[in-house]
Amino acid sequence: MADPIRFYFDYISPFTYLAWGQVRELASRHERTLEAVPVLFAGLLNHYGQLGPAEVEPKRIFTFKTVIRRAARMGLPVAAPPHHPFNPLLGLRVTQASESDPRVITRLLDAVWARSEGIEDPAAVRGMLDEIGVDGQALVEAAATPEVKGAIKTNTAKAIEAGVFGVPTTIVGSELFWGSDVFEDLDAHLRGADPVDQLPVADWENLRPSAVRPGSKR
Amino acid sequence: MADPIRFYFDYISPFTYLAWGQVRELASRHERTLEAVPVLFAGLLNHYGQLGPAEVEPKRIFTFKTVIRRAARMGLPVAAPPHHPFNPLLGLRVTQASESDPRVITRLLDAVWARSEGIEDPAAVRGMLDEIGVDGQALVEAAATPEVKGAIKTNTAKAIEAGVFGVPTTIVGSELFWGSDVFEDLDAHLRGADPVDQLPVADWENLRPSAVRPGSKR
Repeated sequence: MADPIRFYFDYISPFTYLAWGQVRELASRHERTLEAVPVLFAGLLNHYGQLGPAEVEPKRIFTFKTVIRRAARMGLPVAAPPHHPFNPLLGLRVTQASESDPRVITRLLDAVWARSEGIEDPAAVRGMLDEIGVDGQALVEAAATPEVKGAIKTNTAKAIEAGVFGVPTTIVGSELFWGSDVFEDLDAHLRGADPVDQLPVADWENLRPSAVRPGSKR
Repeated sequence: MADPIRFYFDYISPFTYLAWGQVRELASRHERTLEAVPVLFAGLLNHYGQLGPAEVEPKRIFTFKTVIRRAARMGLPVAAPPHHPFNPLLGLRVTQASESDPRVITRLLDAVWARSEGIEDPAAVRGMLDEIGVDGQALVEAAATPEVKGAIKTNTAKAIEAGVFGVPTTIVGSELFWGSDVFEDLDAHLRGADPVDQLPVADWENLRPSAVRPGSKR
């Protein structure tokens, strides 16, 4: 059995929106199972003591411009969400309750990043889900159960164990790819044409510091 | 007078190595003055309370693999430096003393990212500079003066004022581009074909949060 493609994501990241179609296309082309895993990006940031791109003001602006530019190049519609950052937990939990139904993920990503609808209001989310032919009422109710709430925490903890430090992250076997501009590299990796397989990567992995920044935790 | 292209960089970042040839080519093609400004990346991190990519272990590994993959695609040689992170101040100061002589920048970037030589030892740096026909002795001596040391601090403070949050960053007019994979976007910007000029970017810039992560400083 070939390794599945695991896609760790949070609706909070516009790069998840840019990556989603690409990872589905890649999985289909390489005939791999795609496992989409909803995780809480804030949990990753808290774990590493790191700031998100929206938490450094000039980076926030540059990030949104980058999204607009990349979406334009990809021919994807984009529109500003109602708020950002926002609370993604309802969306993540509904997704978990749906067992990561790709129709649900696509609809909620569109709601945030293409349709300015947002995904914080349960009634609105129920309506979106009904619209695409899944049982919105049942999923929104399931999202409020301890099982589903706990699953997002477990997903996030397991993602950290697997080395995930940002979203979206795509993992195949033990190889981790962070971001939305990695699918050409991931394709080369799956074809056995990854440059890191031809170079002494251990030289880089084993690098030791000769100077450490006072603010570093390393 | 067309705006110059300002390139803020630190030798510590392998993306500076990947960007350097591209920004020179872009400036030449658009007939713009290129002003290369050596700054201390650690100073940016300290200012924002942010961690560098080498300070989050799985991100460190992914970053180095990304550099290997992109360099392979660009046909650029890469080799692991002797240490990383390392103290880049000697390299930054020598560069400042040379008034950002492009030959000096190219040679020092090669020393770190293609030739495994490092740039922490004054005698070694002097030798490299002599080798390319600049006065290594004079530059290494100038690097130790209060004027040159202070200039790196001033450069870094001014970069922060200009919105620089990482390296390399390329700024033209008031438009900021972070990273080594931005030159296609920057080229479009200079040609008047930037998608952000055709969209209501203010909708994004003015976004307000509806939820704030406890660890956020925003």
